[in-house]
Amino acid sequence: MTDRVLVSPAELFGDGVFETVHLRPDGPWLLDQHLARLARSAAMLGFTASAEEAAARVAALPPVTVESALRIIQTRESLHVTVAPIPDAVRQERQSGIRVLSAAVGPPPPWSLAGAKTLSYGPNFAARRWARAQGGDDLLWVSHDGYALEAPTASVVWLTGGELCSVPPEEAGILAGTTAAELLSRCSSAGLRGSYRMVTLDELTRADAIWFASALRGLAEVTSLDGVPRARSPWTPRLLDLLGY
Amino acid sequence: MTDRVLVSPAELFGDGVFETVHLRPDGPWLLDQHLARLARSAAMLGFTASAEEAAARVAALPPVTVESALRIIQTRESLHVTVAPIPDAVRQERQSGIRVLSAAVGPPPPWSLAGAKTLSYGPNFAARRWARAQGGDDLLWVSHDGYALEAPTASVVWLTGGELCSVPPEEAGILAGTTAAELLSRCSSAGLRGSYRMVTLDELTRADAIWFASALRGLAEVTSLDGVPRARSPWTPRLLDLLGY
Repeated sequence: MTDRVLVSPAELFGDGVFETVHLRPDGPWLLDQHLARLARSAAMLGFTASAEEAAARVAALPPVTVESALRIIQTRESLHVTVAPIPDAVRQERQSGIRVLSAAVGPPPPWSLAGAKTLSYGPNFAARRWARAQGGDDLLWVSHDGYALEAPTASVVWLTGGELCSVPPEEAGILAGTTAAELLSRCSSAGLRGSYRMVTLDELTRADAIWFASALRGLAEVTSLDGVPRARSPWTPRLLDLLGY
Repeated sequence: MTDRVLVSPAELFGDGVFETVHLRPDGPWLLDQHLARLARSAAMLGFTASAEEAAARVAALPPVTVESALRIIQTRESLHVTVAPIPDAVRQERQSGIRVLSAAVGPPPPWSLAGAKTLSYGPNFAARRWARAQGGDDLLWVSHDGYALEAPTASVVWLTGGELCSVPPEEAGILAGTTAAELLSRCSSAGLRGSYRMVTLDELTRADAIWFASALRGLAEVTSLDGVPRARSPWTPRLLDLLGY
């Protein structure tokens, strides 16, 4: 993200919403779904995001020759659209996987914005710094009553038997993952059933495989959870391929 | 905050710290204390804020003829210093007081930034919108075990007998309030003892008076708490005067 943008100081206070889209040489992937979520997030913050204006700005971008990160940032005052390289470390995670730590979080307050993708990302960065300080690559938030929720910048997906699962966003009060939803809707072509269901951390540790899903990572396989190593899954390359990563 | 600033898109993600200083015709009030807190906040986020650079930028500002809001914003990449009018509604609260609702929050996670004044202010704005939707002006966060903590943009101060109290920031895991600290250190000249101590919500309701303290408000008296009206305190104008508001 090297291009500079002109903003009012009020736009620096995290009071807005954003989307990160996987920008491919053949165009932005799942753009309609991302724009729909941008509008839903803005509504949760009490303002309107114009999907039409964002779509027009994205359509005017020059094509990319290598996969890139497209960010659509909508503050209460203005819309910013930027394109940046995907960090090598993020692409590497598709092959190498990630070491994940779990961490409990308290019940959400009534004004919680957990279902919105807001610009107030300081706590998400802090959570990941904490995980790294403990020797992990990322962390998985677990509810106070023991259910796996989501990661600071990713949805959790797991395979158990022939079922590929993710956490139901409404029921869990988390962000609706765009990449995870696409994977679940496509996985029947790989002979798997896709479904949403709540899962305890304990149940999750017994899954055949676990991944973190997000637009830039695609899928990063969880190679250890709370310090316990996990066998690599033959499904990782197949599912990455299914999603075009 | 009308002046525009040039930023990198990464600076829009709430990953920085700030201070709001009461800018008076005779200069910025409690500037050293605010700069010290800015540096402490940045350290909690794992980066360095230059108090010297901020002080030099502030010193170069032209004097103001009316009280104003000075904001010192330090992202991970750059420093922004802005001056803006104080909204009439905020100044009005010094006279009219505020209706406050209490709301419980869960225990903080180990990566909590609650002690830092970060730019990830979306949840603070959301909390206040929630309070307003319930018929309040602001809200008071209460710990899961019943202790009063702080407000989204203010410290809580209360009077009981001849003792003027505020919540101990370290013990409570909250932001150290600059205005509240100054008030407690000065209040002996008004015949009051200043002290920090934990207080349950129940105890707080029995205080002689309650205020929210912050740089722009100075003090706003709590005129109702959870819908229960409170008698106005004769101390409000005296303490505002003591602080120069």
